[in-house]
Amino acid sequence: MREQLHIIKIGGNCIDDPHELGLFLSSFATISGMKILVHGGGKMATKLASKLGIDQTMVDGRRVTDAQTLDIAVMVYAGLINKKIVAQLQAKENNAMGFSGADGNLIQGVKRTSSSIDYGFVGDILKEGINIHLFETLLQNRIIPVVSPITHDGNGQLLNTNADTIASKIAIALSSHYEVILTYCFEKTGVLYAVENEESYIPILTKEKFIQLKAEGIISKGMLPKLDNAFEAIEQGVAQVAICNAQNLSAIGSEQVIATQIINQ
Amino acid sequence: MREQLHIIKIGGNCIDDPHELGLFLSSFATISGMKILVHGGGKMATKLASKLGIDQTMVDGRRVTDAQTLDIAVMVYAGLINKKIVAQLQAKENNAMGFSGADGNLIQGVKRTSSSIDYGFVGDILKEGINIHLFETLLQNRIIPVVSPITHDGNGQLLNTNADTIASKIAIALSSHYEVILTYCFEKTGVLYAVENEESYIPILTKEKFIQLKAEGIISKGMLPKLDNAFEAIEQGVAQVAICNAQNLSAIGSEQVIATQIINQ
Repeated sequence: MREQLHIIKIGGNCIDDPHELGLFLSSFATISGMKILVHGGGKMATKLASKLGIDQTMVDGRRVTDAQTLDIAVMVYAGLINKKIVAQLQAKENNAMGFSGADGNLIQGVKRTSSSIDYGFVGDILKEGINIHLFETLLQNRIIPVVSPITHDGNGQLLNTNADTIASKIAIALSSHYEVILTYCFEKTGVLYAVENEESYIPILTKEKFIQLKAEGIISKGMLPKLDNAFEAIEQGVAQVAICNAQNLSAIGSEQVIATQIINQ
Repeated sequence: MREQLHIIKIGGNCIDDPHELGLFLSSFATISGMKILVHGGGKMATKLASKLGIDQTMVDGRRVTDAQTLDIAVMVYAGLINKKIVAQLQAKENNAMGFSGADGNLIQGVKRTSSSIDYGFVGDILKEGINIHLFETLLQNRIIPVVSPITHDGNGQLLNTNADTIASKIAIALSSHYEVILTYCFEKTGVLYAVENEESYIPILTKEKFIQLKAEGIISKGMLPKLDNAFEAIEQGVAQVAICNAQNLSAIGSEQVIATQIINQ
């Protein structure tokens, strides 16, 4: 039987609020066994860019990462956020170690070229881009990798990379070795029928229902890429995928779970 | 016979100039066997603080690290500089992995309290603060640790820490396991008799001569703490200690070395 591995992705508002982040990390710290934390960036990078007078160009709701914006993303994501999380986990006796994709060649990306739009220094990940051997070595040594949303192309270029996608690709790659439980934590209870009603969360979401709710416009905007990543994971061998509020993390795996479970059927 | 381990410290102007840094990293990449790179911060953090309108308080020529200044140090040192170096070394087929002291509890510091002045979030390192086991595990796995000048106190607090001291403490701690060759690289040829004359470097510096030159005012200012760290290393078991220009790194260990060798006698 394969060993269980928890992969948790934390993002959005939870990272911007030190109190919320602290509560989340206390919860994360109590998960026993092997685990990996993937974090996003929150709004700190945008704020810093604004303070420095660096204009943020958006195309179709996505930020274009020019050289200056990439430097800020690296500073904030792989620097400030990553190291604060690692230091806090160390204080909770969790042996965390922070990573960008460049560190130990953990995650190799390629500059996005498929689109007609130039997004700048934005990276996509191939399945082969995940360094399974290094993840195994770290986990065997009881190290908890804390992964920031920065990858590299192997030629010296760092790349801004979507954290939801990183979590999904790591989960898929490690599913050949572990029974992976992937949990996306954010500020909502789960995928909601009505965005303003936290109690309207969908407990179980199949692909069929997702397609239907998407067509009806009930699921839209930022949830779509997150769910695409979630369904890709469950379809490619990840044992369990859930989306939940960061504060409900401790119930994941129990009967009392309050989350949207992504189901492969 | 103990295996050889190179510990190189790079700092100052070399980090601020991408061309100089590139040349240095090409040189570093050719060193065979086990190696560790420790880097300082250069002037980027001061520039960023200035752009953000954060005042830098100096006491006796040392920067006071308040909370905002610490955030900038973490962003620039453990984020931008560290990840750029790691990505460039990966491109040169050096399996580099970046660290702050918090990552894997690599280096634990204590907030400086010995002085009558409050320097803020500045850390000092105890010899026991160096995680020898983790360094060994990394080196055995052919990983090249790239260490930024940020440590942690084990209670969740990151600390700004002198990179020269980090290099010295790592060298001393690992001397029980390896034959350590410690090299401080900077923008000068070595310790100079006349600061404006690069050819006036002192090839061999004993403690006695150091004390004499200090008394005569020939060695002063920023060189003093660097040399204190260098002598501490050579007196506590490090096999070789040298100070040289970053561009002369490739000759270290050869007959043609252009550097100041620190001698324990």
